[in-house]
Amino acid sequence: MNAYDSLQQRSKEIALYNSTASVLGWDQETYMPPSAGAYRAEQLGQLAGLTHRLATAPEVGDWIQACEDHLPPCADPEETALRAANVREWRRDYDRSTKLPSRLVEDLAKTTSLARETWAKARRESNFAAFAPWLEKILALTREQAEAWGYTTCAYDALLEGYEPGARAAELTPVFADLQKQLTPLLPRLQKITDAVDPARLENQYAVSQQKIFNQEVAEAMGFDFNAGRIDTTTHPFCTELGPKDCRLTTRYNEKDFTSSLFGVMHEAGHGLYTQGLPPEQFGTPMGTYLSLGIHESQSRLWENQVGRSRAFWRHWYPAARNHFPTLADLPMEEFWLLVNRVKATHIRVEADEATYNLHIILRFEMEQRLVSGELAVADLPTAWNARFEELFQIPVPDDARGCLQDTHWALGLIGYFPTYTLGTLNAAQLFHAAVKQVPELETDLESGRYSRLLGWLREKIHRHGRRYSPSQLVEQASGEPISASYFMDYLKAKY
Amino acid sequence: MNAYDSLQQRSKEIALYNSTASVLGWDQETYMPPSAGAYRAEQLGQLAGLTHRLATAPEVGDWIQACEDHLPPCADPEETALRAANVREWRRDYDRSTKLPSRLVEDLAKTTSLARETWAKARRESNFAAFAPWLEKILALTREQAEAWGYTTCAYDALLEGYEPGARAAELTPVFADLQKQLTPLLPRLQKITDAVDPARLENQYAVSQQKIFNQEVAEAMGFDFNAGRIDTTTHPFCTELGPKDCRLTTRYNEKDFTSSLFGVMHEAGHGLYTQGLPPEQFGTPMGTYLSLGIHESQSRLWENQVGRSRAFWRHWYPAARNHFPTLADLPMEEFWLLVNRVKATHIRVEADEATYNLHIILRFEMEQRLVSGELAVADLPTAWNARFEELFQIPVPDDARGCLQDTHWALGLIGYFPTYTLGTLNAAQLFHAAVKQVPELETDLESGRYSRLLGWLREKIHRHGRRYSPSQLVEQASGEPISASYFMDYLKAKY
Repeated sequence: MNAYDSLQQRSKEIALYNSTASVLGWDQETYMPPSAGAYRAEQLGQLAGLTHRLATAPEVGDWIQACEDHLPPCADPEETALRAANVREWRRDYDRSTKLPSRLVEDLAKTTSLARETWAKARRESNFAAFAPWLEKILALTREQAEAWGYTTCAYDALLEGYEPGARAAELTPVFADLQKQLTPLLPRLQKITDAVDPARLENQYAVSQQKIFNQEVAEAMGFDFNAGRIDTTTHPFCTELGPKDCRLTTRYNEKDFTSSLFGVMHEAGHGLYTQGLPPEQFGTPMGTYLSLGIHESQSRLWENQVGRSRAFWRHWYPAARNHFPTLADLPMEEFWLLVNRVKATHIRVEADEATYNLHIILRFEMEQRLVSGELAVADLPTAWNARFEELFQIPVPDDARGCLQDTHWALGLIGYFPTYTLGTLNAAQLFHAAVKQVPELETDLESGRYSRLLGWLREKIHRHGRRYSPSQLVEQASGEPISASYFMDYLKAKY
Repeated sequence: MNAYDSLQQRSKEIALYNSTASVLGWDQETYMPPSAGAYRAEQLGQLAGLTHRLATAPEVGDWIQACEDHLPPCADPEETALRAANVREWRRDYDRSTKLPSRLVEDLAKTTSLARETWAKARRESNFAAFAPWLEKILALTREQAEAWGYTTCAYDALLEGYEPGARAAELTPVFADLQKQLTPLLPRLQKITDAVDPARLENQYAVSQQKIFNQEVAEAMGFDFNAGRIDTTTHPFCTELGPKDCRLTTRYNEKDFTSSLFGVMHEAGHGLYTQGLPPEQFGTPMGTYLSLGIHESQSRLWENQVGRSRAFWRHWYPAARNHFPTLADLPMEEFWLLVNRVKATHIRVEADEATYNLHIILRFEMEQRLVSGELAVADLPTAWNARFEELFQIPVPDDARGCLQDTHWALGLIGYFPTYTLGTLNAAQLFHAAVKQVPELETDLESGRYSRLLGWLREKIHRHGRRYSPSQLVEQASGEPISASYFMDYLKAKY
């Protein structure tokens, strides 16, 4: 077997084990009985150890080197290009995996596993001091990680690279600054518009059984393939890939507000459509793998927000919603629409509307850069957080539980992850704008609940490429322009 | 690490992978979307290959040999005995795995996988000729298997050994003959007694939601630990172990007859209690593993039949059943009890009552011995089957779909499996009789729906021993006598 075929075989072998681990993970979140947790961790640990050994074995490095030295061209130049891209991505993954000493990997795994518990307790008690030593340790290990991976400008870039290949803090900073500059004056106006309707107008009893049916109807209309996926119930909604034809979504139900589950399902189904749109024959190689968190999130947000929170969407779906939930008869569509587009400054990121959400991210992006560089000491985080929060949101932070302790990310060692949420938001608006411009039929499609042309465009421009291009290349190719905050701002302004 | 520790580590490593495969298998039967089947087979195949390599590696043989040559005694003589038993069982497993040439293993896997489809179609069309060549091939491979494993008296013993260690056809034959001799005159009398009530009296609408609640109440009362297990819905009910604290049962619901699901759950929960009663600290070694199919089946049948079909059970549970299913108010308990103990000669094994069931097994036990020895040609199976069936049941066989094509076992290569069902039935009656004799409080316990003393007895006598003794030793130790048909016959006679 030549070096390329060996790499491909190894890559698919690892993916096969990883997909098995995904089944374990899905079951853990959905149906696993409580006492099974300890052994499940052993099952997952065993597979993680196995795939790590397979991925970092010296022969893998030799195969990559051999391909880099000479990759025989194929008869089909497209195939040659795909292979070259695979080799590039295998190199990237191999270097990132092998550059970390195993002592550091184990230290991080152990620390974050323990920190997770401490953080949960600290948040419950709003006790930052209890979490601070753990955050110190995680930051120290994270800096070591960044040094091992290497970077040009700042350590933070090495972390960001893990979630958004090619993204650099210095390039994101002006984009986010522009976004903030435009958002700040707009938000109070949007808040005033959407304050016109009392949120209690939507509160009612919505049978979970009806919510399930309606969610499924919408997800099916979007194009989610239920022969190759399903929806289950969990506390924290997610989307996971258990194999090339097996994509599982989850949601939770609020009996008093059916929209919370519906938008959750549209969001996860957006992720799911990306997953289902990756080329199955490339499954287990970079060309069959999602590109980045910012691109993944662009797909979920586009379906949840650009599609799901639009007037066009509800002009088509509100009658169906009223069939499922007869009490909606008393709520005019325009009022309903304002309620699901309500803008309001709040303390908790995960409860934020799509507009103010970005200020939450900007805050975290700033804080984590300063923490990693050491410019901000952990002990000073609450003060810095609270001051900046008040500047951005014009409301004070009542306690750390609703301040710098609210997110689980840092406790899990996920530093550099937050900006991908806003990248997703900006990408979504920019891609949706491009799609509507390039496919004029989309406007009437969306008014009539037809999504196949939109999905076709996303499949063509985004999904089918796997990791062939960088995220910024892909967005630029699809939309004709580099990423900017302006499409999202235009979208917000046009909407209200 | 010494040889024993190496074996133990390897054994637990394999069990960890196998339990992961069980998660895949459980998901496949319960929630997996239809298109995911092909990749799921790859996931399972990958793990099967991995564990096969780990189990049959030459170093395993060396470790076993070293332990057989000299097993250092432990301070605790009980621990020394357990270790010796583990070594004995590792040897057994290793020899059975390594004696088969891999060509034969692959041939059997491929053949049975294809035969399964052909069999399903042949049964639908009641076309034995279509299945015959596959059965020929499976028998030929099975005979090769038996030769590779080796035997003293007949090839069939080598197959039986795989399901019921230590069992021999020559020893089962007189037990089964005795059973048949006693059953044949009794059955028409039982049929007449239970024919007194029209089965239509039970047919009604039983809400699945209420069935689920009632099933769970009963399983909980039996002692099934729902923190370490759960019940889901599948076409074919089963019980599977996903880890030491993770036992999953499944059932199906008949909206017209709640007892079908209830007895199914009691049966699977009986398996589950055995699984949950194995010593968790021995998980992954023979001492933490179930002993044989005949012992497993004794546990499920004891709970389903000796407990669940008794008058004492229903004197306690019938009021609860009437709360869940108010239409039972019109059906006196004694009539209900007769209906769930109805005896009737029918063609299909899986629909048979607990008494006639054994004639179905006796028939299969005879046929498969003759097929393996070559005394009966495959082409002659339908004629032989039908003649013997009519002799045993006094009714003719209308077609092969309701005759020799009805079971999936032979198509899957499971030859020598059937007798364990009746062994389970006989063991159940004998163990239950011993328990009641040894623990006089059981009678009042069962009248009041208390099962902890019965479960305690089973834990003590059966569950905690894993594979320490042979099945016949274990039953003899627990009941004071070798296995015999008389306790089951006494149980039947006393019941009606």
